[in-house]
Amino acid sequence: MEANLDLGPSVGQVEKRYFTFGDEGGGLKLDCGRELAPVTLAYETCGELSADRSNAILVCHALTGDSHAAGYYHPDDPKPGWWDRMVGPGKPVDTNKYFVICSNVIGGCMGSTGPMSENPATGKPYGAAFPVVTIGDMVRCQRRLVDHLGIDTLLAVVGGSVGGMQVLEWAVRYPGRVRAAIPLATTTKHSAQAIAFNEVARQAIMADPKWNHGDYYDAGRPEHGLAVARMVGHITYLSDESMRQKFDRRLQDRCELSFDFEADFQVESYLRYQGNKFVDRFDANSFLYLTKAADYFNLENRHGDGSLVAAFSRSKSRYLVVSFTSDWLYPTYQSRTMVKAMKKNGLDVSFCEIEAPWGHDAFLLPNERLEALLRGFLDRAHADLTGGGHAF
Amino acid sequence: MEANLDLGPSVGQVEKRYFTFGDEGGGLKLDCGRELAPVTLAYETCGELSADRSNAILVCHALTGDSHAAGYYHPDDPKPGWWDRMVGPGKPVDTNKYFVICSNVIGGCMGSTGPMSENPATGKPYGAAFPVVTIGDMVRCQRRLVDHLGIDTLLAVVGGSVGGMQVLEWAVRYPGRVRAAIPLATTTKHSAQAIAFNEVARQAIMADPKWNHGDYYDAGRPEHGLAVARMVGHITYLSDESMRQKFDRRLQDRCELSFDFEADFQVESYLRYQGNKFVDRFDANSFLYLTKAADYFNLENRHGDGSLVAAFSRSKSRYLVVSFTSDWLYPTYQSRTMVKAMKKNGLDVSFCEIEAPWGHDAFLLPNERLEALLRGFLDRAHADLTGGGHAF
Repeated sequence: MEANLDLGPSVGQVEKRYFTFGDEGGGLKLDCGRELAPVTLAYETCGELSADRSNAILVCHALTGDSHAAGYYHPDDPKPGWWDRMVGPGKPVDTNKYFVICSNVIGGCMGSTGPMSENPATGKPYGAAFPVVTIGDMVRCQRRLVDHLGIDTLLAVVGGSVGGMQVLEWAVRYPGRVRAAIPLATTTKHSAQAIAFNEVARQAIMADPKWNHGDYYDAGRPEHGLAVARMVGHITYLSDESMRQKFDRRLQDRCELSFDFEADFQVESYLRYQGNKFVDRFDANSFLYLTKAADYFNLENRHGDGSLVAAFSRSKSRYLVVSFTSDWLYPTYQSRTMVKAMKKNGLDVSFCEIEAPWGHDAFLLPNERLEALLRGFLDRAHADLTGGGHAF
Repeated sequence: MEANLDLGPSVGQVEKRYFTFGDEGGGLKLDCGRELAPVTLAYETCGELSADRSNAILVCHALTGDSHAAGYYHPDDPKPGWWDRMVGPGKPVDTNKYFVICSNVIGGCMGSTGPMSENPATGKPYGAAFPVVTIGDMVRCQRRLVDHLGIDTLLAVVGGSVGGMQVLEWAVRYPGRVRAAIPLATTTKHSAQAIAFNEVARQAIMADPKWNHGDYYDAGRPEHGLAVARMVGHITYLSDESMRQKFDRRLQDRCELSFDFEADFQVESYLRYQGNKFVDRFDANSFLYLTKAADYFNLENRHGDGSLVAAFSRSKSRYLVVSFTSDWLYPTYQSRTMVKAMKKNGLDVSFCEIEAPWGHDAFLLPNERLEALLRGFLDRAHADLTGGGHAF
């Protein structure tokens, strides 16, 4: 599963930058009706923007991701960015050719404005006073960043899961500014089951007395609740099959059942470990806001008055849609639905369901098929633009 | 979905009885090595035991069920027992013909000995001092009850989910005492995914400070944690398809998104309601013990030295195995595995995968196919015994 075929060298050292707007008024009018100001986006870039500014690719991260898609902050960093396998010199998202941008979403906790940020009205962290933001709000912030970087049209927007929602939102909201859109392992709207899982995770956080209605930054954080929330999420990122292959009923550090409530099984200690590790890097309020944004996402309602076909009628992008056989969070039928609606609009769509047992997480794992698809699709989009390639 | 076709009158008034053993030593030696004494089982019966004591059917309840399978405690009870549709005069488990027994499992909180019961060593509730019990322990208690009722051989043992595990345990552990075994929507061992869901539910309870390491009976109960645990479980009892049909993305009591963390969607308020309702009727410690028993269940390890075929070589029962297409907690492939192992032993097995969108809960919902299967299978088993019917 973790066969890490070398896809070439890393992009090397990268730097987290910050773009702020609205600090003197002119913040972001949100879908909820409130205005957010100031707004800061943490972002990173790699590769070089071409003279005609036509080679920019925006990478959108998933629920709990960040701007650190590729490379290392320091030469001695133990781990590169979360998509280092895919983004770098000679890699599918080839930084020898493309200028790659990745920013942390608003509502997050990795440098962009979110519930942990200072509320200018109080001088304290927003907490639950932070406005509920949407995928549309996130994308409108990203557009400001792209404007700021002097880029009119993105060669591509690519992302998986909640990142894929941002891709779809970009392509429909800003039809003239996205040549190629690559939504991976995603959906045009959250199913009742996906909402249910998010709601249970939120309830786990809010049930923790330390959550304190979102006001905990001066006191202890709701670590127990957040760990449980992450455990719920983790189950949905894997699959029955991948859990059997990875853990089955193997015991953890013992030969016999313990007959107590310690972690008997490897799958239990794996989940506990994932929960505890997450608490160190993520903010509980951000988790609430980001899951809510995902639940609210509904492309057809927002842009098509209830019709997905109408929503995509706005789009002019070419698409590469990818789903994974064992992804039961956003199953293939949901990708097929969006592909149908795209095709009804005569859009140029490539669709591939990749056979993979690893569940929803498959889009983040080494996968030669995905890598080849991404590389080919981007190369063709780029070649068509520069006149060097065949038309689709 | 809830089309409640009338299957005939209720069995009428029933009474919860108690059977206690081990109050003067001779308790139950548990799989964990400890001894439990005294042991009380709450149980109910309906129908009449025949003179030759050959018409007894043991019904085994699922995770959070109880002994109240059918009928009413009082004439003005608003709701009958949990399987009243299936058990009663003229119903598939026909109390005009059969003597039906249902007991609450040990570890439970509905009258049988469990963590809420008085620990004779301290005079206080056991709490976390209650021993971890297994499906095998539960079944050995049930056997004592069946002995007490003077029944040598059960005509049938029937149950779904964790009740189905008890059915399998009965048929393999006491091969001479079960003529017909009917495991519904169940498995011979918990998958890693099923363990994972239970572990998250347990962690939700144990994360609640009011759980207090199981010692909460004098103080407030861990209601928040237990509610979250139940919500996790509920998602696994339904299915993607049933949640879409039942809720889709419909909003609760509003026309617009709220842009706060109240329940926007019907599926959210449904889950919150289920969580809160559960807290009123169930004990958090029992939830820990019963999920652990389910996770520990492993028929092939316990009775076949790792081979399911070897485990079933002990059995002499005839079987009706039923799975449901949309049950992703105990998917059909798990039933097929047990059916194969039964058949390799030359056992008489009927297997049916019932087409149903309602997920794991399907075995509890009105289903004509299930009712017909159960009725026919029991009638044939009974007829074969009394010499009035054709052989299988």
